Parts: sequence; structure tokens; C-alpha cells
Amino acid sequence: MALQDEFHFIDQIKPKRVSQSGLVAGIGDDAALFRPTSHMEQIICMDTMVEGVHFNSHTMNPYQIGYKALAVNISDIAAMGGIPTYYLVSIAIPKDWNEADLLSIYEGMAMLADKYAMDLIGGDTVSIAETLVITVTVLGEVETGKHFLRSQAKPGDVIFVTGTVGDSAAGLNVLLHNGIEHTLSEFDEALIRKHQYPLPRVEFGRLLSTFERVSLNDISDGLASEANEIAKASGVILQIDEDKIPFSEAILTKYRDRALEFALYGGEDFELVGTMALSDWDILQKKASERGYILSKIGTVSDGGPAVFLNRNGELQKLEMKGYNHFTK
Amino acid sequence: MALQDEFHFIDQIKPKRVSQSGLVAGIGDDAALFRPTSHMEQIICMDTMVEGVHFNSHTMNPYQIGYKALAVNISDIAAMGGIPTYYLVSIAIPKDWNEADLLSIYEGMAMLADKYAMDLIGGDTVSIAETLVITVTVLGEVETGKHFLRSQAKPGDVIFVTGTVGDSAAGLNVLLHNGIEHTLSEFDEALIRKHQYPLPRVEFGRLLSTFERVSLNDISDGLASEANEIAKASGVILQIDEDKIPFSEAILTKYRDRALEFALYGGEDFELVGTMALSDWDILQKKASERGYILSKIGTVSDGGPAVFLNRNGELQKLEMKGYNHFTK
Repeated sequence: MALQDEFHFIDQIKPKRVSQSGLVAGIGDDAALFRPTSHMEQIICMDTMVEGVHFNSHTMNPYQIGYKALAVNISDIAAMGGIPTYYLVSIAIPKDWNEADLLSIYEGMAMLADKYAMDLIGGDTVSIAETLVITVTVLGEVETGKHFLRSQAKPGDVIFVTGTVGDSAAGLNVLLHNGIEHTLSEFDEALIRKHQYPLPRVEFGRLLSTFERVSLNDISDGLASEANEIAKASGVILQIDEDKIPFSEAILTKYRDRALEFALYGGEDFELVGTMALSDWDILQKKASERGYILSKIGTVSDGGPAVFLNRNGELQKLEMKGYNHFTK
Repeated sequence: MALQDEFHFIDQIKPKRVSQSGLVAGIGDDAALFRPTSHMEQIICMDTMVEGVHFNSHTMNPYQIGYKALAVNISDIAAMGGIPTYYLVSIAIPKDWNEADLLSIYEGMAMLADKYAMDLIGGDTVSIAETLVITVTVLGEVETGKHFLRSQAKPGDVIFVTGTVGDSAAGLNVLLHNGIEHTLSEFDEALIRKHQYPLPRVEFGRLLSTFERVSLNDISDGLASEANEIAKASGVILQIDEDKIPFSEAILTKYRDRALEFALYGGEDFELVGTMALSDWDILQKKASERGYILSKIGTVSDGGPAVFLNRNGELQKLEMKGYNHFTK
């Protein structure tokens, strides 16, 4: 059964309560209205996920598609040091999707939104011939002047990364080879979980916002690509030590030979990579450890470039701006 | 030639200058940042257009697709009484679209954005198998408490509409029957222009914002549907006089028999329909006429309902919440 009535569908996805005190009018009029918190800058981003490109029925169920569509946007807010507040969802629906699965997409989003007290305040619902397309816009806020850009790296900085990297691409690899129904090992499941339920690093971004100067990026296209973006925006060289890159036990067990490739070029980990003054590093490390965050120093910033080098046992290898490019892969 | 390089494409669509003084960071980082104007509420909306559903190569060229994708969103800002400020664009691109046509979409948007000093500050560029999908998010602002909702109609109000209605649907009808290449009469062209280049009524919305209480809606789904939304949100009856509905010379010449159908159920006119106190009506009419705006009183609001009636020479006919519904048509 395809979706019969747009208005009935919207009634069902309309939130039953409001979390943000600044919300004036959510779903139900021509546009949404909110009063921004004073002394805060507004942050906004927008990402699209396409059936057959970003997901398919073998890699993610509808709930996970919803979760991830929101998570990737929240991750962008985290990479600015901000707090997510509102989201809007536009969905283009083909005839072969049923209402239960569509509602499940919104439930996956609502689960994550609740964690951050975010409100769904608008969007669009349209039909399409072939493939489901979901576009999410997320708003956030950060104390005026306290945001983090990629352009703030300076020579002498420490390069750090949160969590472990490469797991999402490894998880996708498991899914593409085994399918969603296959019996999986504990390690397989850990990797798949990172692909299906990436956790945006909002709390860590907020911890960083207590520091004066941080350059920051979230890992959507792989460590090589994100590091190059920082190098380019800041006009510096980033040197990453291969033996410092944090890998999970799961990826080292399942994919020891491909772990580096997945970390550098796989993407979708939605961890944070950044740089900060060496003098701040010890304080950050202490605070992160108190809070139980996994945090690794993976290299240093130096004068020159822009370029990114991987230090492999003393041998420097240039890392190109390669990652997921939608139109060459 | 399909799109080869996402980064190269983004470089080309990136605006060369900034119009809004509140913009802190636009395209080029994880998210965009802006400082909202003080004492203003923020407005946000999001609309999607799908190839084969909202347009095809016989009804609109790429420049017009871009123009309209932005216009429909600005129209929602206008319907809140607001000023548009920023926009974000997410586009899913199939292989059979070439880069020149894609850039043309962004040029069509930029043309309209310039009119309102809006800045393009973000979005996404992804691939898709079959059909082009374009989603636009528009931000705007309105003086705190001065926004217009659909729920503000009261018994005794005048119902008004801007411009003429039904032209867009009539124009689409011409296009679907003749194709974009056909030799067209002056009237055909006028109707087609309303379909391809709807003009959001931002200035009129701002004029309305000098009045205390206005209920307002933009005509995206047809007069019947929009009037029902006001009736429902306000808990009143809207009675529209058939002989007061403003039609263009073009529609009356080409489609006299279908003009009413197009006006009530066609949609995409992006005119404004609203209600206000009778005591304010004369002042509005005077101000509108001074500025050269076409404005018509088309009926009155009364107690009861919610319902919408069409007065056809004294005979009342109930108008249902019918309009463009993506999943029943």
C-alpha cells in the first residue's frame, strides 16, 4: 500500500510536544517561526540521502535511514561546536514504499532528536517515480564568536581525532558482502552499528568550545579528505602518524589489511578531527578522559603546504583530497 | 557530459559576494553561521521539486526550475509577513544532466535571490539514478510578534487575494498541450509566464505587516485548499463570492470555462490570500492602490464551520479541501 493522503501522513509525523522554548510556530503553517537565543549565532546545514546511493534495503532499514539522515546533519553542527535545536525534513516518496516504513523513518529521527531536545518544525512531502530521497535541514546555535572553522589550524598544533575511524566503511563492507539478514559475529555487528547508527559528537564539540582556538571538521568523507580541508582552509601542512590512528578491535580483527584504507578514504565515521595549540592539549586530554571520551593525538601541524602527509614509519606519503566524490566513484 | 567533480561544481555555484550583513560563514565549512537581527523572529521553510512531478523538459528549462524552486519558498516567507535572507540548496543529480544545465538552475535562483539581497549559504550535491530532485531551504525574518498565521481570521473579516488566480494552472495546461517549443499567442505566453516565473508577494506581505491582525496563506495548492486551511486553523467559515475572484484577461480569453476550476484547484499561483478586519480594509486598499498592487476583496468571514463556501449567484456551494495532493492525483 502506497501513501494515500499527504495531509493524513503529515498529521502522524507532527510532533506531539515542543522541546525548544524559542519555538513560536512549528509544522502547520506556511513556514516555521522561532526566536533565536540571544548572544548565540545560528548554525544551519542540509544533507541529502538517496536510495541506491546512500542506502538500500540490504544496508539499512527505514528506522536506521531516518536516524542516519538526522545524525549526519547533527554531526555538522557538532563540527561547529554548536548545539542542535530544530530540524526540517523533505521526503520524496516512490510508490513502492508503504506508510509503516515511512513512519519508521521519522521514528528513527525522532529517537535521536529527543536525545538533543530538538523539534521537527517543517519540511515537505512529495512523490517521485523511482527512488526515495530524504533531505534534512538542521539548525543549531553556538555562543557568538565561539564557533569552530576549518581555517583555524596553526603550525605547532596537535592534530586530534575522537573515537575510532574506518569502522563505518568496514561495516558497510560487511553489509554489502553478507546482507542485512546474515548471521554476524560480534565484531561484524560492532562495525555495522557504526555504519547504521553513527553518533554525532555534540558533547565533545561543546567541551572543545571551552578552548580559545580549535580547527574542526567532522569525518564524513574520510580522514584524508577532512584533513586536506583543514590544511587548505588554514594554509598549513598536517602530518598524520599512521601508528597513532585509532582503530577499533573489531576493524583490526576483521579487516587488519584494509583498516587504513577505510579510515583514510571510507568516510561516514562522523567522528571529529581537529587541531589545537599544544598548550591546550593536556587540558583537553584530561577533561576528555574524565568524561570517558576516546581521544587520540594523531599528528602535528607545520608551516607550508597546504598539504597532508602520512608518516609511515618515518616515510612521508602525500595524502590526496580523495574521499567519497559522488560523481567519480 | 555528466557532472565530473563535486568540488569543482561547488566552487562554481559559490557566491562571489555577500549581501546579508549578519552572515558569519557561508559555503565552505561543515555548516553556515549567521547572526540573527535582534528583535526579529527567524522564519524557515523547505520545499522540494521533483523532475517528472513538478516539472519536465516540456514545461520548464533549467533556469526556470531554479527560479521557481526558490520562488515557492520565498512565497512561504511572504505568507508569514517576512523578509527572506538566506537559502540552502540540495540537489540530487542523475547522469543525463550536464553541467551547463545544472549551473543554469543555480543562475535562475541567483537572479531571484539578488532581488531580495539573499545569500546562498549551503546545501548538498549528490547523485541519483533517475530523476533530478531539488530541495531548497529558505530563512527569513520578521519583527518579533508581527508574523501572520492562518489562525488569525475572525467573523466579520474581509477575505482578500492579491493579483489574479488560476493563471499558473492554465499556463501549465498550455504547456502540456503545446510543448515549450510551440508558437504561442500573447495570452498563452502570459499564462505560461505565471507558471514558470511566479512572483512571490514579499512586498505585499511587508505592507500587511503594518496592520494589527491578518490571517495569511500563499496559494500553492489552489484557492479552495488555502481558504480551507485558514477556516480550519481559525475555526470560522470563509464565504467566497465567485463573481469577485480576480481573473486575468489571458485566462478569460483562453480558458473562460475552466478559469474557476484552475483558480480553486490548480494551485502554484503563489499569490497571497488572507483575511483582516473590515475597519482595516479601506486603508489597505488605499495603500495597495498607491503602490500599484492588484488586490481584490473576494468574500467575508463568518461564525461557525470550519468550512469554505462558494457563493454562486446566491447559491452556496461547499468547497472541499481539495487541491494538489501528491498521492491521490
